[in-house]
Amino acid sequence: MELFILTIDYSGTFVFAISGALAGMKRSFDVFGVFILGLVTAIGGGTLRDLLIGSTPVGWMQNTVYLYIVVAAVAFAYLFRPHFRKLRRSMFLFDTIGIALYTILGLQKALSFGLSPVICVLLGVVSATFGGVIRDVLSGEVPLIFRKEIYASACLAGGVLFLVTDQLIGERAAMGVAIVVVFVIRTLAVRNHWTLAFGTADQS
Amino acid sequence: MELFILTIDYSGTFVFAISGALAGMKRSFDVFGVFILGLVTAIGGGTLRDLLIGSTPVGWMQNTVYLYIVVAAVAFAYLFRPHFRKLRRSMFLFDTIGIALYTILGLQKALSFGLSPVICVLLGVVSATFGGVIRDVLSGEVPLIFRKEIYASACLAGGVLFLVTDQLIGERAAMGVAIVVVFVIRTLAVRNHWTLAFGTADQS
Amino acid sequence: MELFILTIDYSGTFVFAISGALAGMKRSFDVFGVFILGLVTAIGGGTLRDLLIGSTPVGWMQNTVYLYIVVAAVAFAYLFRPHFRKLRRSMFLFDTIGIALYTILGLQKALSFGLSPVICVLLGVVSATFGGVIRDVLSGEVPLIFRKEIYASACLAGGVLFLVTDQLIGERAAMGVAIVVVFVIRTLAVRNHWTLAFGTADQS
Repeated sequence: MELFILTIDYSGTFVFAISGALAGMKRSFDVFGVFILGLVTAIGGGTLRDLLIGSTPVGWMQNTVYLYIVVAAVAFAYLFRPHFRKLRRSMFLFDTIGIALYTILGLQKALSFGLSPVICVLLGVVSATFGGVIRDVLSGEVPLIFRKEIYASACLAGGVLFLVTDQLIGERAAMGVAIVVVFVIRTLAVRNHWTLAFGTADQS
Repeated sequence: MELFILTIDYSGTFVFAISGALAGMKRSFDVFGVFILGLVTAIGGGTLRDLLIGSTPVGWMQNTVYLYIVVAAVAFAYLFRPHFRKLRRSMFLFDTIGIALYTILGLQKALSFGLSPVICVLLGVVSATFGGVIRDVLSGEVPLIFRKEIYASACLAGGVLFLVTDQLIGERAAMGVAIVVVFVIRTLAVRNHWTLAFGTADQS
Repeated sequence: MELFILTIDYSGTFVFAISGALAGMKRSFDVFGVFILGLVTAIGGGTLRDLLIGSTPVGWMQNTVYLYIVVAAVAFAYLFRPHFRKLRRSMFLFDTIGIALYTILGLQKALSFGLSPVICVLLGVVSATFGGVIRDVLSGEVPLIFRKEIYASACLAGGVLFLVTDQLIGERAAMGVAIVVVFVIRTLAVRNHWTLAFGTADQS
């Protein structure tokens, strides 16, 4: 079961780093820029969470495997750039399972610092989504998840569900259920173009 | 007197969160984006201060009332969106008293970490103003307070004044005087279109 | 020899702050904006490194001399604005020696926190380059060093070289060699328009 978590964690890091690297290549960044964009996308959310709760040195700096995964992902993104249209479905799969897992791992880490559950759910969502926010800010874009299909909201639902069911059905089962729910919500949202907008927003 | 401080603190958080939420709605952000923009505007400055001095978990995470104020402010901003033109005067009032208070509370917190007074004044100004800076960066805008009427400068004046008078007339009186001075400077600056620019800046 | 390091450290801070202040003046920022942009350019990289490893209060807040250097640099930038074209060569000199030194000082500080050498080299490069990244983000620009001539890569080469030679030839000699190498790489890169790009990047 730990192996299952590690597999998702590493695959998620890989897929997040690819998304950052592709964004950098699209903007003609140089090798350093592409690498940094891959890195911040992969580890930015967890880094922000660790800074906010005061868990330093931040997580990815204590285990070099994350850095090597990012390097591998950047190389992979470069070599297979023309083929990512075909890989889109696999990437969506790992990305969605990844955000679900990161939400829960982030939530659990925050709980271990004695914070209120509602703050911990928020920190879980931040862990899962702020890598992409930092990627977009560094690329000169308005963060995609602020305008996009139900992405952060799926994480929020999964986090709340995990928190509620954790004590009832056990940690592992709760984690499994939450991941499935995030996956289903996001898949349905993308298929049906669901959004959670505040109506039309033409006021200033 | 503590009640007075709490009232300003909570009103300021509410007004800052509204300003962030309105910025998000103007850009057609979804519910999550609007909430995050309200949150970072309200707590971003104090969060940056806490990170820089090493006071973690950062302040707003230790008391959920700030999170609930932000949620209430976002809902309020959505419901009363068409009416904010009329509310502008009240918002200016709370915003200006808010930045004055945040400057002083930030300054005091930094002093309690044994830092030099000049650094503490700077951290006070950062506490009061960087929520708006982060809001603008996340909205894809160049930060308003870098180009605007005397906003940060009013905080700076208030912070220095508080530091100088704190020992002479007592903490509460010094706080009152500083808040009034920030308010007067900013009101005059807005009325008379004062700016503190470096002349025309057409060099590259 | 300590004097040598201090001289480079202070000159580097001065030159970095000027580069930030000029960027702010070019965008017609007010005095506060110009100062903040000078400050973050000068101390942003080291601040990010300190936050990530958990060394707080961050470095520049424990010694006010950095703040005063930034204030002096902003004043200098304002007064001599028309003459910076002539000063470009001196600025390039100090900037390049500065990033080399910051890479090594950042690397050493990270090592003292018991982190893996590969992470420490990365933190050295972050120390040297992220002040400029934050300057660009706050100015509404896509970070220059993500698109530019061999800048971060020169730091990376210097950092690795220092790490390898430190034990062999002594700290001071290794530092001297690394600084010279960063300087030579960057000078050649600028002269010959070297870049490290991922080929043409027209994919999306």
